[in-house]
Amino acid sequence: MSAGRRYLVVGAGALGGFYGCRLQRAGMQVEYLLHSDYEHVQKHGWRVESKDGDFELPSAVVHARPVDIPPADVVLLGLKSTSNHLLKELLPGLVNKTGVVLVMQNGLGIEEEVAELVGPDRVIGVCCFLCSNKVGPGHIRHLDYGTIAIGEYTPTGRPGGITERLRSIAADFEKAGIPVMLADDLRLARWKKLIWNIPFNGLSVLLDVETNELVGDPDLKRLVRSIMDEIGALARADGRIIEEEFVAKMLRDTEAMIPYKTSMKVDYDGARPLELDAIFGAPIRVAGRLGTPMPMVESLYRELRFLDRRRRSENAPAG
Amino acid sequence: MSAGRRYLVVGAGALGGFYGCRLQRAGMQVEYLLHSDYEHVQKHGWRVESKDGDFELPSAVVHARPVDIPPADVVLLGLKSTSNHLLKELLPGLVNKTGVVLVMQNGLGIEEEVAELVGPDRVIGVCCFLCSNKVGPGHIRHLDYGTIAIGEYTPTGRPGGITERLRSIAADFEKAGIPVMLADDLRLARWKKLIWNIPFNGLSVLLDVETNELVGDPDLKRLVRSIMDEIGALARADGRIIEEEFVAKMLRDTEAMIPYKTSMKVDYDGARPLELDAIFGAPIRVAGRLGTPMPMVESLYRELRFLDRRRRSENAPAG
Repeated sequence: MSAGRRYLVVGAGALGGFYGCRLQRAGMQVEYLLHSDYEHVQKHGWRVESKDGDFELPSAVVHARPVDIPPADVVLLGLKSTSNHLLKELLPGLVNKTGVVLVMQNGLGIEEEVAELVGPDRVIGVCCFLCSNKVGPGHIRHLDYGTIAIGEYTPTGRPGGITERLRSIAADFEKAGIPVMLADDLRLARWKKLIWNIPFNGLSVLLDVETNELVGDPDLKRLVRSIMDEIGALARADGRIIEEEFVAKMLRDTEAMIPYKTSMKVDYDGARPLELDAIFGAPIRVAGRLGTPMPMVESLYRELRFLDRRRRSENAPAG
Repeated sequence: MSAGRRYLVVGAGALGGFYGCRLQRAGMQVEYLLHSDYEHVQKHGWRVESKDGDFELPSAVVHARPVDIPPADVVLLGLKSTSNHLLKELLPGLVNKTGVVLVMQNGLGIEEEVAELVGPDRVIGVCCFLCSNKVGPGHIRHLDYGTIAIGEYTPTGRPGGITERLRSIAADFEKAGIPVMLADDLRLARWKKLIWNIPFNGLSVLLDVETNELVGDPDLKRLVRSIMDEIGALARADGRIIEEEFVAKMLRDTEAMIPYKTSMKVDYDGARPLELDAIFGAPIRVAGRLGTPMPMVESLYRELRFLDRRRRSENAPAG
């Protein structure tokens, strides 16, 4: 693997699509595996509205069928984890023998599944701190943030260190204007993402609110903080310290952010399955193994499982 | 106070109205203080649809203004606790010097406020296990149950024992076909009521469900049970043991019950204030004093406070 590597985006939605387009715009070789948007993007390319500046990519290398794609050097896996049952069929043929898969999905231990398919030494985890939505075929709206934290996966969960390939891929993202944090310890980075994801995604669905209400209402702000503390305690039991200042800054940043509909709320409103197992189920299983109680997170989880089932059992709404 | 006592219902809604009508039908002297239903009931009396048999009371002694009412022997206080700011003005003139106030409201320590107004020795607490709704002016629908637990209030919270007046009032209710449990320890009875009220009222509002879904969905049933356990632990810290068999029977009974919209959900749908302080705030304050964590109940409380504020800040819905 070297500079000039071929990127392939699998799951080119609000997240995978955004990063793919940024890399392509910066001159990287990027291809996209598309399903429903295939024809549109083949004809019209991509359109990205972004707080960093709008841009269009009039043409893009797109594929409709996995079998047509030559194995890539780097797969950006942006698929929702609720579609991970597709990976077994999909993934092994898409990455070449020296290539890696960048798991850009949410959740804890989410790399394990991929590691089983392509081998543990070919998996890199990426935590994306990104507010973006897909607003139409080939059309992405980037609202805020964009930073990624990127770290080597290890089967033991121990820190994987900063490798040469990590630096090299990070350099591509930086060329594309994406701020990159190199994570010596991927699991710590995952916990730092979850400490936001669990309360904000969960409560946004439960209470039909956007981020501004979750940090603006006094009761909800206190609740968010209590849930974060519960997750912080679990991370600590898992050997990872999340500093108080990190959490405080995260809350300040969310307060400063423009009101944002979380990705889980977007899925809920679209009657699509929620990523409950990756974001809630996996940490709760860790809590069970470590004997750490998680009453608030578990309440949310059970409520969301019910809401998810109910919403999907109704007819899919028009929106 | 003797047989032939005069009852006065203050807060003659789904609950106060139901018990008042049952007592009146059984031949007791019952009067009603009414506000919006005054004219209707004065003209047409009461109509009660009940699983124990429908009945009508074509005439009733009703009052529109507290000052017109001669002090009663027994006041049935069925007002929502969210209207308790009215009691100071209202209550002292309504009960005679040897009379008592039956506090039929939900919550913990809810008798204290009344005790301050009429004296602690003139307060009796009543826990009502009743499913009923007010469906129109002077029109009550009794869906299920009806049993009351009745106990003497004591300022210390210690068991008040079974007094003569308790037996005598209980006898009137029994004559009216209402099953009565004499509660030696009012505070234990209050905890036994709360252990149902907190999860079922709270979750019914949060998730827009009726009782059948809360005991029928596997995730919600487990959540209800976990919340009940949290309350049971707090009651224990408060010196009250709620037996496992009591909780198990309560859940079985709720499963057997026809689907029921809880009173808090009825209030929520009507954009009326929720009884959050009495049902959630008071136990949470007890938990604080005793150093017992209540993460699930506190989550619910904060979510409901937000929902309550939001709903009331919107225009009151038509329904």
